[in-house]
Amino acid sequence: MSNKIEFQIENLGVPKLKSPLQLSTVRGDDIFTFISETDKMVFDTSLEGYAKCLANNEEPLCFEKAGPRQNIHFDPENSTAAIVTCGGLCPGINNVIRGIVMALHYFYGVKKILGVPYGFEGLNPEMGHGFIELTPDKVKDIHQFGGTILGSSRGAQDVSVMVDTLLKNDVQMLFTIGGDGTLKGCNAIGEEIMKRGLDISVVGIPKTIDNDVDIIDKSFGFETAFDIASPILKDAHNEAAGAYNGIAIIKLMGRDSGFIAASASLAMPVVNFVLVPELDFELYGKNGFLEVLKSRLETKHHAVIVVAEGAGQHLFEKNDVMTDASGNVQHDDIGIFLKQKIKDYFSDVFPVTIKYIDPSYIIRSAAANSSDSVFCSSLAYQAVHGAMSGKTKFVVGKVNDKFVYLPISAVVSKRKKIDLEGGFWFSVLQSTGQPFFLG
Amino acid sequence: MSNKIEFQIENLGVPKLKSPLQLSTVRGDDIFTFISETDKMVFDTSLEGYAKCLANNEEPLCFEKAGPRQNIHFDPENSTAAIVTCGGLCPGINNVIRGIVMALHYFYGVKKILGVPYGFEGLNPEMGHGFIELTPDKVKDIHQFGGTILGSSRGAQDVSVMVDTLLKNDVQMLFTIGGDGTLKGCNAIGEEIMKRGLDISVVGIPKTIDNDVDIIDKSFGFETAFDIASPILKDAHNEAAGAYNGIAIIKLMGRDSGFIAASASLAMPVVNFVLVPELDFELYGKNGFLEVLKSRLETKHHAVIVVAEGAGQHLFEKNDVMTDASGNVQHDDIGIFLKQKIKDYFSDVFPVTIKYIDPSYIIRSAAANSSDSVFCSSLAYQAVHGAMSGKTKFVVGKVNDKFVYLPISAVVSKRKKIDLEGGFWFSVLQSTGQPFFLG
Amino acid sequence: MSNKIEFQIENLGVPKLKSPLQLSTVRGDDIFTFISETDKMVFDTSLEGYAKCLANNEEPLCFEKAGPRQNIHFDPENSTAAIVTCGGLCPGINNVIRGIVMALHYFYGVKKILGVPYGFEGLNPEMGHGFIELTPDKVKDIHQFGGTILGSSRGAQDVSVMVDTLLKNDVQMLFTIGGDGTLKGCNAIGEEIMKRGLDISVVGIPKTIDNDVDIIDKSFGFETAFDIASPILKDAHNEAAGAYNGIAIIKLMGRDSGFIAASASLAMPVVNFVLVPELDFELYGKNGFLEVLKSRLETKHHAVIVVAEGAGQHLFEKNDVMTDASGNVQHDDIGIFLKQKIKDYFSDVFPVTIKYIDPSYIIRSAAANSSDSVFCSSLAYQAVHGAMSGKTKFVVGKVNDKFVYLPISAVVSKRKKIDLEGGFWFSVLQSTGQPFFLG
Amino acid sequence: MSNKIEFQIENLGVPKLKSPLQLSTVRGDDIFTFISETDKMVFDTSLEGYAKCLANNEEPLCFEKAGPRQNIHFDPENSTAAIVTCGGLCPGINNVIRGIVMALHYFYGVKKILGVPYGFEGLNPEMGHGFIELTPDKVKDIHQFGGTILGSSRGAQDVSVMVDTLLKNDVQMLFTIGGDGTLKGCNAIGEEIMKRGLDISVVGIPKTIDNDVDIIDKSFGFETAFDIASPILKDAHNEAAGAYNGIAIIKLMGRDSGFIAASASLAMPVVNFVLVPELDFELYGKNGFLEVLKSRLETKHHAVIVVAEGAGQHLFEKNDVMTDASGNVQHDDIGIFLKQKIKDYFSDVFPVTIKYIDPSYIIRSAAANSSDSVFCSSLAYQAVHGAMSGKTKFVVGKVNDKFVYLPISAVVSKRKKIDLEGGFWFSVLQSTGQPFFLG
Repeated sequence: MSNKIEFQIENLGVPKLKSPLQLSTVRGDDIFTFISETDKMVFDTSLEGYAKCLANNEEPLCFEKAGPRQNIHFDPENSTAAIVTCGGLCPGINNVIRGIVMALHYFYGVKKILGVPYGFEGLNPEMGHGFIELTPDKVKDIHQFGGTILGSSRGAQDVSVMVDTLLKNDVQMLFTIGGDGTLKGCNAIGEEIMKRGLDISVVGIPKTIDNDVDIIDKSFGFETAFDIASPILKDAHNEAAGAYNGIAIIKLMGRDSGFIAASASLAMPVVNFVLVPELDFELYGKNGFLEVLKSRLETKHHAVIVVAEGAGQHLFEKNDVMTDASGNVQHDDIGIFLKQKIKDYFSDVFPVTIKYIDPSYIIRSAAANSSDSVFCSSLAYQAVHGAMSGKTKFVVGKVNDKFVYLPISAVVSKRKKIDLEGGFWFSVLQSTGQPFFLG
Repeated sequence: MSNKIEFQIENLGVPKLKSPLQLSTVRGDDIFTFISETDKMVFDTSLEGYAKCLANNEEPLCFEKAGPRQNIHFDPENSTAAIVTCGGLCPGINNVIRGIVMALHYFYGVKKILGVPYGFEGLNPEMGHGFIELTPDKVKDIHQFGGTILGSSRGAQDVSVMVDTLLKNDVQMLFTIGGDGTLKGCNAIGEEIMKRGLDISVVGIPKTIDNDVDIIDKSFGFETAFDIASPILKDAHNEAAGAYNGIAIIKLMGRDSGFIAASASLAMPVVNFVLVPELDFELYGKNGFLEVLKSRLETKHHAVIVVAEGAGQHLFEKNDVMTDASGNVQHDDIGIFLKQKIKDYFSDVFPVTIKYIDPSYIIRSAAANSSDSVFCSSLAYQAVHGAMSGKTKFVVGKVNDKFVYLPISAVVSKRKKIDLEGGFWFSVLQSTGQPFFLG
Repeated sequence: MSNKIEFQIENLGVPKLKSPLQLSTVRGDDIFTFISETDKMVFDTSLEGYAKCLANNEEPLCFEKAGPRQNIHFDPENSTAAIVTCGGLCPGINNVIRGIVMALHYFYGVKKILGVPYGFEGLNPEMGHGFIELTPDKVKDIHQFGGTILGSSRGAQDVSVMVDTLLKNDVQMLFTIGGDGTLKGCNAIGEEIMKRGLDISVVGIPKTIDNDVDIIDKSFGFETAFDIASPILKDAHNEAAGAYNGIAIIKLMGRDSGFIAASASLAMPVVNFVLVPELDFELYGKNGFLEVLKSRLETKHHAVIVVAEGAGQHLFEKNDVMTDASGNVQHDDIGIFLKQKIKDYFSDVFPVTIKYIDPSYIIRSAAANSSDSVFCSSLAYQAVHGAMSGKTKFVVGKVNDKFVYLPISAVVSKRKKIDLEGGFWFSVLQSTGQPFFLG
Repeated sequence: MSNKIEFQIENLGVPKLKSPLQLSTVRGDDIFTFISETDKMVFDTSLEGYAKCLANNEEPLCFEKAGPRQNIHFDPENSTAAIVTCGGLCPGINNVIRGIVMALHYFYGVKKILGVPYGFEGLNPEMGHGFIELTPDKVKDIHQFGGTILGSSRGAQDVSVMVDTLLKNDVQMLFTIGGDGTLKGCNAIGEEIMKRGLDISVVGIPKTIDNDVDIIDKSFGFETAFDIASPILKDAHNEAAGAYNGIAIIKLMGRDSGFIAASASLAMPVVNFVLVPELDFELYGKNGFLEVLKSRLETKHHAVIVVAEGAGQHLFEKNDVMTDASGNVQHDDIGIFLKQKIKDYFSDVFPVTIKYIDPSYIIRSAAANSSDSVFCSSLAYQAVHGAMSGKTKFVVGKVNDKFVYLPISAVVSKRKKIDLEGGFWFSVLQSTGQPFFLG
């Protein structure tokens, strides 16, 4: 059961200080009970999974339950924390920053909290960005705004330089809010710290608007993303239906996974086609996308198509793979491509009117909705509890609807994708009327 | 393990007809796989729970996984379904109606679907309401509207009369969307059907804006509810901060459970006090609510108080318990009461300005947000799959983030409440700064 | 033509300093041209009004055009301004504050700007509130929030004391944002200043969510008010239609004038009755409100009623008139009254379900919508231009869609009301189907 | 005074039938008074304009006041009306359709109302679109949706064919909702009708999201347009501020006039540059746009640029002017162009991050906000009153805040543009800090 070892969180040492939180150690007194290291949650909750463990007489794969520990590792009064936000915008970043600051300040009494400007760049003194001192007063209203008050950047910096910066500024806890690349970077910082034998905890709060972090139920900002996208689909439908044989194409985020495209389409059931990276579709041929689109127009005279940015990459002729500063594969623009292919195809068939909508930045820069706000503050609180107890190189997330700690390494090995045989995708097909296969 | 038996869903018989859904029976073909009756999900997902089962050598408490079955019980072409909506408004009712109609019509080919007007009243011919024939065209846009297109009513009708009505109209499947009382009514109908040996399936889709249905993760409409409530808390804060020693009191729904009040306060962290039914607080005395409120005003000169409608009932002198037509205990108005008590208390202390806000109907009548829209259509689809397979007296819900079927009897025995020792309430206390005890 | 004299703005002296604004004095150079004192706008724009002037050989009643003057009265570098906000909340107050600060600071170079806390109370040193120094950095984001960052209060303070405070703090310009009572107070301050021969300008920016300031086209916040109210009417309709013979009553603001109730009902045409203070309606009798309501229910089985808070005051038996701290007549609660009367009336007729909604604070505390934001910043800029030029005891407003200056005295003598014979009310009756007379 | 003749509305004859509206002919009875043909409103409301007329002893340029007339031309019971919507989407079209149907049906008793599908195409039988019968029940909820329920198209159809269609279907009144090209088409239909001596009234309701119809205060949908655009500017600011030297470019509608770009920037004051078609700016040189942008970045490290689609056309090298199907000049894409020029310019200067946002379709397809809803229903009512009284070839609009009728010919001769020397543009410059000249 190698997996079980993978899910073990590393710790900077056995925590020896008494937590300043006035909590309980027993149930029944109406006071929250400290979480113990033996509080664990099973990953595979199917009866089949249980039966398998039982048959093999082995413990199931488990996660550490997140929450405040009775003993902590860092002395709050003499600790400095730092927060850094990396990569593209995503609803809820400011909520997470706010939650971390509030938790460090009010729950534990950590008074010195540094905001690192413009992502990992801010940990490289050469960039000359300096730090922003974060206080409750400074962050109390920021949850109402999208974006990140710290600024962000893409791409890596020299790990050794960043650890030097942490050391020079006497930072004990580094909270990194970022996606796959950022989490890998955070892990590398954590490993360098271990190598040098330093007493610094590094924590990741996974940020991916695409909801493609492996294992965890969902990432923050994702619900807001399709909440913002869904009325735009209604707009698109207005545009499509407003013209004879009107076609609206909406390109949504989703580099490797089509969760936003699929969820928004479920939320606003005016969509006829959802093209996601997971789906291997063809344009031409009897059951190809264009032929099916033509049938749709012949009967209903309008169509709404949602396409995730990473969909249909197999349709391009590739020479070289290009990546952005974060190391993400740069996709050819499927939206523009699709628009052109549809235009070409119908030029011989019948006149169509095509409207193309790309609302990505509007979605990325939105403020978190209520559900994400609640989620973000909980993530922040749990991250602080874990860091204060001396855990390191971990992320906080929800699995099977419970907050747990996971090793960074466990969530960055691969991306979460839509299971084309699962219930979620089946819902999408049921809702849109799209066939299982296109081509 | 009597519980296991409770969680067993009853069936009208072994389903013998082939499902018209073109799905798969094996994994790996990119087509959704039918759910088998042996697909089950474990309830208690803690390692402790697992260990207990292991020690006792018994199967853990499980739920049937929801989804389409390979064999169905009703012949779609010769089946009639009916949908009824009962009790107070809740965001998402129309989405559920829409989802049921679409699933019955398009997935299975059930063409005759009756909308029952004005709740259980509509199943009593004496009321003279008649039926509304539901078609895809009639329901396609209704997800954009709050309320219920069928109308609703509170209270019970004679079970025997309702079963007669189903029989007379040749109804094979009754979908009831409603709360605790409605589900009990639905169960009673199901039992009468069993007693008479009829071939009619009854299904419940739990509807409670308070999110107080036992066992299931959440009920539909709940997320929208606190999503609508949360900006109103910001408004309230504007009112409170706009006056010297300004106090805003917002009364939110929550007859027995304070989930809306607590979640909205977490989502919009401008709240200083959250008073919920689960909390046994005192007004007077050294650590009583009014004294703590006074301290708050002395330092910050404004305060925001969220109170759930069922909070503080112990503060009233009761003579007789009164119930509404749905059988719910009628609460004294804690909001008005609190306003008066605060006014009285401060009349001798210093001048305060009190603003009282009761947005209940605005919240109840809202359209579902995107997250609830996705949730509602999935609930509807799963309900249809279950009914078509001949299951009866069951509800559909999410437990540990997975869709499952549960016997109605399992969820109506008691209300779900906030665990005052749990992580959720602890988050609320952390976010508001409210002490564990008031009084 | 005594009116013409009334509309003359008083000035602290002939302005002698050169404006720092780099504007033009001629047309045709693509640079804004300074407004001259002879730029005037006619009030009565009907041909009939024009003909009357022609016949009598007299100049029509005019207003001074608002805008920057070539000469100013105050030396920006040595000037201090103060801003005070009084009375109930209204969308847009923060936008006006922001606009004034930006205009004083960036356009003219006035660096010292005092925020007066909690209304006129803040000009009474006894209250001990102090001042808040306002800078562009402090106000740059406040337009996104409802309420007032300065706080507010109702009621008057000793005029002499307030003038002393202005003098003691070397204030040259006082900007007062408030309603009828506030503007009268502002005028009294201006008169005391004149009496003492001081060199202080006082300016009013009329704030009344009810839109009842005489002469001017509309007051800021009013459009936002019915923009917020109108979806609530849709909610109310959902509640009404959700029950058999369901009735929704929505009480909206409108102490003396029903503009919000009427406009919201026009904007969301689901309303059947709009009861405003201007309308003299009866409850009972053949054509009385209750009888007409009954007819409506008999045919449609639900009804939506919007009632302005000041409507139907003639229906109460009055002993003493009560006023609030601002001197406004305290109305009996027509909403609760109506609910009770409807309940009583139908108790003998047929069962009805009544839902009562009072969203007042939610509307008052909202942030300005886009239209009001544009309007508020223009009002603020114009107020600053007028004050800098040494005008005093004036308000800024739009008349016939143009920005003008008006003497405070001209707008406070009476309230603007809906003209029951005018086109606006006729639209409301057309839209709702409500008869001209009720009773 | 040739203008006065231009503003005269043509009539199909002296109306002889009694209006079915139960209105009054005298003031003082609390009932709306019919509008008389002599009720006129003066256009130029400046004292200067009055004085000029007075000096020349001539009547000022006037408009006919809109509203119901005591005598009407068409017999409602035997009349058929038709409604057609042309050109691009604009918020409020459905509200106007709804208002026309309601006014015809309920006020006058016209029962036969034809919806013409897909613009003028629908009046060409060759297209085979047929008609949609419009009833109150069909239109009662459509005001809540953006788009047009009738569909639209661009471009002209043969006038003679369209008049034949009206004749064949016995249409007495044609309501055309559309922009400049549509209104010209409507006028041409009206002239053909006159030439043939037919008894058909044609009415225009000017629809231009750009607000560029000459003479009238504003066109419907415009306020909604910048209300939708303004939070997107906030998003854009989040994106710009989220990166070091981040630049956000937002392209908004505005083919010949920059009202949306300017108003949205005033409403959401996070914008640093507003580039409109009226402004003749240069990219390069000491005071050129790029140099000024560089200065901004050097001090603030982010910038937000709003550009109207028709701005900067002088910067392109033109060979041929291209027009779309509506005859509008097709602009080169200034947004993409600007993005490229900025990228090129800074490639030698310092690294910048550019985010490009084009929300046009999201704005066009939105539902009307409350203010526009009120406006649209009034426009519709006034259009119906005018048509019923036999007026033809006219539009309805607001001038100086009053509803009037204008000849179509008066509003289509040229486009309304931002006056660069007027107060509105000055507000924009004040709010953004943008200099009068760029280049």
